[in-house]
Amino acid sequence: MNQALEGIKVLDLTRVLAGPYATMILADLGADVIKIEMPNIGDDSRQFGPFVGEESAYFMSLNRNKRSITLNLKSETAKGLFVEMIKEADVVVENFRPGTMEKLGLGYDELKKINPRIIYAASSGFGHTGPYSKRAAYDGVVQAMGGIMSITGEKNGKPTRVGPSIGDIAAGMFTSIGILAALQYRNVTGVGQKVDVAMLDCQVAILENAISRYVVTGEIPNPAGNRHSSIVPFEPFETVDGEIMIAAGNDTLWTKLCEVMERSDLADHEYFKTNLLRNTNYDILRPMIAEAIKTKTTYEWQEILDRVGVPNGPINTVDKVLQDPQVIAREMIVEIEHPVAGKLKMPGVPVKLSETPGSIRRPAPLLGQHTEEILKEILGFTNEKIDELMKENIF
Amino acid sequence: MNQALEGIKVLDLTRVLAGPYATMILADLGADVIKIEMPNIGDDSRQFGPFVGEESAYFMSLNRNKRSITLNLKSETAKGLFVEMIKEADVVVENFRPGTMEKLGLGYDELKKINPRIIYAASSGFGHTGPYSKRAAYDGVVQAMGGIMSITGEKNGKPTRVGPSIGDIAAGMFTSIGILAALQYRNVTGVGQKVDVAMLDCQVAILENAISRYVVTGEIPNPAGNRHSSIVPFEPFETVDGEIMIAAGNDTLWTKLCEVMERSDLADHEYFKTNLLRNTNYDILRPMIAEAIKTKTTYEWQEILDRVGVPNGPINTVDKVLQDPQVIAREMIVEIEHPVAGKLKMPGVPVKLSETPGSIRRPAPLLGQHTEEILKEILGFTNEKIDELMKENIF
Repeated sequence: MNQALEGIKVLDLTRVLAGPYATMILADLGADVIKIEMPNIGDDSRQFGPFVGEESAYFMSLNRNKRSITLNLKSETAKGLFVEMIKEADVVVENFRPGTMEKLGLGYDELKKINPRIIYAASSGFGHTGPYSKRAAYDGVVQAMGGIMSITGEKNGKPTRVGPSIGDIAAGMFTSIGILAALQYRNVTGVGQKVDVAMLDCQVAILENAISRYVVTGEIPNPAGNRHSSIVPFEPFETVDGEIMIAAGNDTLWTKLCEVMERSDLADHEYFKTNLLRNTNYDILRPMIAEAIKTKTTYEWQEILDRVGVPNGPINTVDKVLQDPQVIAREMIVEIEHPVAGKLKMPGVPVKLSETPGSIRRPAPLLGQHTEEILKEILGFTNEKIDELMKENIF
Repeated sequence: MNQALEGIKVLDLTRVLAGPYATMILADLGADVIKIEMPNIGDDSRQFGPFVGEESAYFMSLNRNKRSITLNLKSETAKGLFVEMIKEADVVVENFRPGTMEKLGLGYDELKKINPRIIYAASSGFGHTGPYSKRAAYDGVVQAMGGIMSITGEKNGKPTRVGPSIGDIAAGMFTSIGILAALQYRNVTGVGQKVDVAMLDCQVAILENAISRYVVTGEIPNPAGNRHSSIVPFEPFETVDGEIMIAAGNDTLWTKLCEVMERSDLADHEYFKTNLLRNTNYDILRPMIAEAIKTKTTYEWQEILDRVGVPNGPINTVDKVLQDPQVIAREMIVEIEHPVAGKLKMPGVPVKLSETPGSIRRPAPLLGQHTEEILKEILGFTNEKIDELMKENIF
């Protein structure tokens, strides 16, 4: 057994981002993820640019390690096949609007009658309960409603959307956590269950201590810019050719920073010697640090600060992230050969397991690429049977 | 069995945020998390404000559902006790700088000799391998280096830090995913393993399609403000009393939006009737939408847009998040009674499991609150034995 989730069969009805991110995590760790797509159309994100030839880079980066079967779930014959597949599956994942699976007659209550061991995971905008349940949401909407925008942005500036779609991605991560926890429960009891994850809930969960901070102080948090709320210096400073984040988290690091800035006079200065003093006298201190940092390039400061152990880092653009020696050493950028699009770089697997390292075993599938293979493998169909079904236009 | 992770014993050596967030996820889903803290000091975040009396709200919100034992791991006697506890544990989690556990003689290679079933999870800034491995990182540093800042911020503005500590929180989430995947592997094979999660790696993982977008187009992504990159209208607009996010994701929604704006003339207008046209003619369209939205309050627009099904949401500040009917209905704000601090509100459990719902079973522990209880329960010590050990100043 080379993969942690080897042998776990996942039927994946998800589209676009939150759901596919969840099943990508499972697939990267070894689950057999079978993507069930609408014939001719498939996952909406197959139409999202940019494209390599006619293949969506967006789709390809989220759907590696998965196989694709087409199935028109509006047809009764296709529903029958899906139900047969449910009998052989461990997990089913969907991110439709709540109620969609019930309308198809394939809601959790139906599926668990067919396979009581099935783990049914639903990722949706607002969840399967509550007054907003039936509403559609997008990443931008839940970032707005969930509070994260209100505390992101320049000091005294406007609420700002987080660049990556953290509304979707956080939901994808918590969905995979829910599935894995349900798997543990099933390993002990033999019983499956439903996992209901809402994008909005996940935004509240990642707000974390902003909530208790508000509750305790009564102060409504605002965008705070790039400065740490209570540690000085802990923010980016301009260099000759860019910016560098400097995080002198305690007085020892402050002393070291003063030395390399050639401002040892500041280290024990009665205005600056403790973090509390540095906070109080921030307005006179910041320009002095800024003046010193402005004299060298970002790279020069990295070398100097790393040598004395002051935590720091450049504000990397995406191109620089791909060149970072640590990112490369950790295999966090992988290059996958796609049969049509050729080689494509994308993020690697962030969960590093010593015995069963995650792996990229196959590129994202073409639409319906594995339909026959899966019908034979899971349902034991013959070529004749498949030919017959093909006439029904369900694939 | 009422909880998904019931019976899973976690020895938790983590401090501050990334590690405690990982073990909070496990504890919320039923794991027995035993926090091992330095005598007299404990988790550093016990000193982080704001405080309720002398109790840190920061600490309390991250450490619910856990028990606390003090143990000075620099003492040989204490190490002996820790080793005995390892024999009874399923998981150990730490977020020290790489090498710290090895220096204590308690690295994974040692611990797996004692208990080959142990799952050893390490969450660190840069991971346990690679050229930066030994460096310290903080949330601000990995947000800078990992690229998320470079694509967050106002259009043409500066790179912006994400308000919540997403550098820590993403690492905490992936650490819990790694532990749960390792548990699945152990359930099949009986063998434990090491889970090595780096904050920087996780930042790369959540950049997601920003990476393949750059690779395919060669364009370095910049902060893009709050507007969707390819859908119009999909951004916040000012109202009488604030802002509202409006996400008209397709032409049908666009038509509905035009109706309620009383601008049906725009719906089929040759400049605006398709999304492509709306993108092309954005500069003349936006002011027209803005003018219409400016006439009513945020709440009025919510009512109107919800009625016709156009996805929308207010940009909630944290106080508003706590009052949101959906957030309340989903129990995403919980109030916990702490024996010293009284009642405190914090985020609920975002993973909703039908058979084994996550739960808050106890408030965050006082430092060493459960030392005796745990020594008796796990190691079977008598009062006499404990009294004897107390003299060694290891608790």
